[in-house]
Parts: sequence; C-alpha cells; structure tokens
Amino acid sequence: MSRQKRPLFGAIDLGGTKLLSVIATPDGEILARDRRPSQTQEGLEAILARMAGSLDSAAEEAGVQPSQLGAVGVASAGAINFDRGIVSEAPQLPGWQDVPLRDLLQEQLQLPVLLDNDANAAGFGELTFGAGRGSRHLIYLTISTGIGGGIIIDGQLYRGKSGAAAELGHIVIDMGGPVCPCGARGCLEAIASGTAMVWRAQEALEQGRSPLLAQLAAEEPLTAELIARAARQGDEACTEIYRVAAFALGNALASYVSIFDPNAIVLGGGIMNSSELIFEPARRTMEGMVRRLPLQGLRVLKGELGDESGVLGMVALLRRDRTFGG
Amino acid sequence: MSRQKRPLFGAIDLGGTKLLSVIATPDGEILARDRRPSQTQEGLEAILARMAGSLDSAAEEAGVQPSQLGAVGVASAGAINFDRGIVSEAPQLPGWQDVPLRDLLQEQLQLPVLLDNDANAAGFGELTFGAGRGSRHLIYLTISTGIGGGIIIDGQLYRGKSGAAAELGHIVIDMGGPVCPCGARGCLEAIASGTAMVWRAQEALEQGRSPLLAQLAAEEPLTAELIARAARQGDEACTEIYRVAAFALGNALASYVSIFDPNAIVLGGGIMNSSELIFEPARRTMEGMVRRLPLQGLRVLKGELGDESGVLGMVALLRRDRTFGG
Repeated sequence: MSRQKRPLFGAIDLGGTKLLSVIATPDGEILARDRRPSQTQEGLEAILARMAGSLDSAAEEAGVQPSQLGAVGVASAGAINFDRGIVSEAPQLPGWQDVPLRDLLQEQLQLPVLLDNDANAAGFGELTFGAGRGSRHLIYLTISTGIGGGIIIDGQLYRGKSGAAAELGHIVIDMGGPVCPCGARGCLEAIASGTAMVWRAQEALEQGRSPLLAQLAAEEPLTAELIARAARQGDEACTEIYRVAAFALGNALASYVSIFDPNAIVLGGGIMNSSELIFEPARRTMEGMVRRLPLQGLRVLKGELGDESGVLGMVALLRRDRTFGG
Repeated sequence: MSRQKRPLFGAIDLGGTKLLSVIATPDGEILARDRRPSQTQEGLEAILARMAGSLDSAAEEAGVQPSQLGAVGVASAGAINFDRGIVSEAPQLPGWQDVPLRDLLQEQLQLPVLLDNDANAAGFGELTFGAGRGSRHLIYLTISTGIGGGIIIDGQLYRGKSGAAAELGHIVIDMGGPVCPCGARGCLEAIASGTAMVWRAQEALEQGRSPLLAQLAAEEPLTAELIARAARQGDEACTEIYRVAAFALGNALASYVSIFDPNAIVLGGGIMNSSELIFEPARRTMEGMVRRLPLQGLRVLKGELGDESGVLGMVALLRRDRTFGG
C-alpha cells in the first residue's frame, strides 16, 4: 500500500537520445530517477520495453510497486495528438508516424497513461513548479540540438487544431535564409539551435577560421558547449556564431512578444548553460525592438527545472486531471 | 420605441484616415452606414464630436433615435486596454496615449460603449459573420497601409496581458532587414504592407527602373493599388515588389501555422483586391514550408466583409455580452 493518501505518479521523458523516468508526488517532489539512453534506433517494441524497465527501476529506488502508481505521464518528442494519445510524427524517433503510444504503454504498464509533447510538458512544468509560477500567459522555449516550444494561455496549454501548435523553433526570422532540418528556410532552429551552431562551426573549421576550436575539437566532440568554450577564450569565429544566434533569438523573442503580449517567457534547454553568450544579448535585442506596452511587466526568465521540466510538467498535468486521482 | 424586441446596435470603426458608423441588428444586418474622413489631426474633442455626428447620421438614415440603441461598439486603431476601455497607444491617432475613449464616448453619446482594437474586431467579425464562420482557432490578418492582426482561440479573442497581443504585422521575418515604422527592422509590415510597397516603388522611380509606373503615377497618387496595375501591365520593378511582398507574407503565414496550428487563416484589407499578386503566391509559399499535420484541414481564406468587418465584429462582441442586451 502507498504510504500516502494521494497517489504517487510516474513520469517519463522520451527524447531522441535520452530517456528519463521519475517517481514523484503530486506536489512535484521527485523521489527517484532513472536515466538511460533512449536508443530509438532499436524500434518501437524495444523502446516500450525500455520505458517500462526505466520506470520499474525508478519505482524500485523509490520503494514502490509500479502497480501502486496513480498514473504515468509521458512527455514525448514529436507532434502529439493529445486527445487520441498518438505520436503523429516525430523526426527524433525514426520511422514513427501515427504511433498510438499512450495505448501501447497502457497495455505494457497496466496503468493509466497521459501523453503530451515534451516541450509542452516542459513549459507546463516551469509554469507549475519552476520559473514561470503564477503566470497567466507564458511562452516557453527550449533550445538544445533543436528548438521546441510551449504556449500557455490562461494557465492552459494551447495545442491547436491537431496538436501541432507551438512549434516555436520554426517561425521564420530570416526568409530565404539557411535550410532548416524541417525543410523550410530561415527558421529560428536553422540559426540558433545547437545543431545549427555546430554546422556554422564546421564551416569555420573547414575554412581554417577557428584554430582554437580546431584544437579543442580534436579532443572532444564538436558541440554548442564546446563552441561556447572557444568563444569565451576569445575565438572570433565562435564569438560570431553565438552573436548571430543570440541576435536571431532576440528577434524571435520580439516576435513572440508582439504576438502574445505574454506575462512571461521562460527559456530552457542545454544552450542556457551558456546564457551570458545567448540569453542576455537576446533579451537586450528583444527589449530594443518591442513596444512600451507589452514590455511593461514582462518577465524573461531562465528555466529552473533543467532536464526535469518535462517529467514535472507531466506530473502537473496528471494532478490537474481527476481521471488520474489528481 | 424600438420596433424589435432585441435592441439595435451602433458600431463605429475609427481608423487613421476613415470613420465608418453603422446601425445593425444583432444578427449582423446593417441597416444604415455613414462614412467620412476621421481627420485625426483635429484632436480628441473634435474626433469625439465627429464620431457622434457620424453615428447620428447613420441612425437617422435607419430611422431610429440614437437613444434607442442598445449599445455602441467602437473598433479603434491602436493598442487597446479592453477591460479599462482605454486606447493605450496608437501611431495612427497622433498624440493619443492612454486615452479613456470608452468612457469619453459613453458620456458624449449617453449610451453604453464597448471598445476594442480594430483588427481584433475585424477578425471577430469574419469569425462570426464572414469567411471564418465556425472556426475554433482563427488567425486574422489585415493588410492595407499597415498590417494588423487578430487571434481567436477557442472562439474567443486573445488579447494578452495588456491588450497589446496579435500585432501580427510586427513579427520579424527578415532579421536586420528594412526599418519598420515601429522602429524595429525586418517586420512583416516593413516588407508587405501597402506603405512598404510604396517605399520600394519610390526607390524604383528614383532609380528610373519603372517607366510605366512613372507614367501612371504622374496622374494618380502612388499606392499599392497603382503598383499592382503596373505589375499587371508587365512592369518588372512592380512585379518584383509584389513578388517580394508575397514571399514575405507566405513566410509569415508559415510562422503563424507553426505557432497556432489554426483551423483557419483569414486575410482582409485593401491589398486583397490584388489577391492574385499576393494572396495566391503567399499561400503557395506557405504550403511549401509547413508540415503535413498542421496543413491538414487548414483553410486559408479571403475575408468576406471588406471594410465592414470591424463594425460587424463589434456587433458580434456586443451581442455576446449580456450587459448590452445581446
């Protein structure tokens, strides 16, 4: 039997490379975690088993039987049909199209499952337990290898007609500009994502414009983090890469403000580890562009929940839903 | 006494250059209209008197006393604080800042007044009586000298924390690009508005690149409409101006779709008179950029209500509000 009257929840964040499972209270206290690679190339059956194994592992550490959990929330990469519990399409999960992940997992786990998009969940997590607490209208942006978004209006996630809304990385800020992985040109993601910055750095390396980065990259994989390190050590090409990314991000933030006039914008994702190179200059760019009125009272914040924002968002979604004993 | 059980409404659209007043039934049937220049340079007192005079004139034509009206809806240019009935700022209305237009007009007219932004009202008009009927999530864009927007979510206007939301003409689509009247660079309005096209045409004229337009502009004022006429007659510079504007608009539409995954996008405003030069190519551009899922079931439509969308939107807002006998 559970030691508490209110049930514990399980939550899983399924990303393109990483899997995180937690056991948490409805108040967002995480009792146990399990992290492992998601190994999405192994196919659907293997991923389902892997998710179940990860959750079991976290439950064991928390000292609970999985069957005692009130429900399990799953934050998945990709476009999610929330009502039907389906992953409609997911570039990060090879071959996935219209996968009924919610029902498949319910069968696998023998527990009620709630499925949402990972960036939506992360935004809702920051709204409920993190930097955006108490905001009425909140825009969430996560910048890592890709750029995802969450839109919260009147305290509720906005999903659009088919669950494909809030693709905030795919607003165009440089029309006709660099090709984006989505196929379009000039999207924010094609300029300010970790992947885009690595592309620019590879060009700089090929052209011999960044001897310092060449030295660093001989010993470590080339990532946005490594580019930041080179920039901090005075590498001009790497400084320029961050300058352009921050300018692009600032322009995108200005667009979100003009569109939403939100109470808060919260930025998360790995890139925020280099926030003095991107977050601060982007915020200043935005502040120089938008009008007086939407700027008044606007809070622009770094996320507080790190890579646990997604699982905590699923806990927050579960506890609001009476179906799951929340 | 009114001949009907349900009251008639008055509605006024206050633009930077034009004023339109109507008397209408709650079902959106317009019984009488009055059009006159708004002459905003004459100052607040004169504008208030002008609005009252225009409404009286329409009422007289409809055969009703203004005092018999259930309420008056006012669609105004500028950022509107909806709850407080204030025009917070309005570039089109010289010198207006924090003008309590609702209360001032209530005193002037001795009638209940509801105040909203003109593009918001136009979007709500198209949702209720026009091209967007029955849409759950609708994005409205009006392109004339400037570019305004309205966002409808779950059938309701979205206004943001301070009534400044839905400035859809000020999303950045060409970062670092042409200066916009708002002071920023690369906004949609700086490229695809009538004013922006006229700027480009003036450059072409100065550089002697458009002999046909020079000929036409010797006889008529240089407007987006005139540029369209020259483009239709084969003028290359004018064709290029529309090509760039349509490409910019298509990129902006793609951004709105990625953000909102809406059921419908409705485009209104004077520029739509040249829809084959801008609406059709912009739609094709957008369709080539966005993903499968949000494109499914998306309707991209020309507005049906012309310059009466704003007043009809105010009628629709009044009739939904029990305060006004709707």
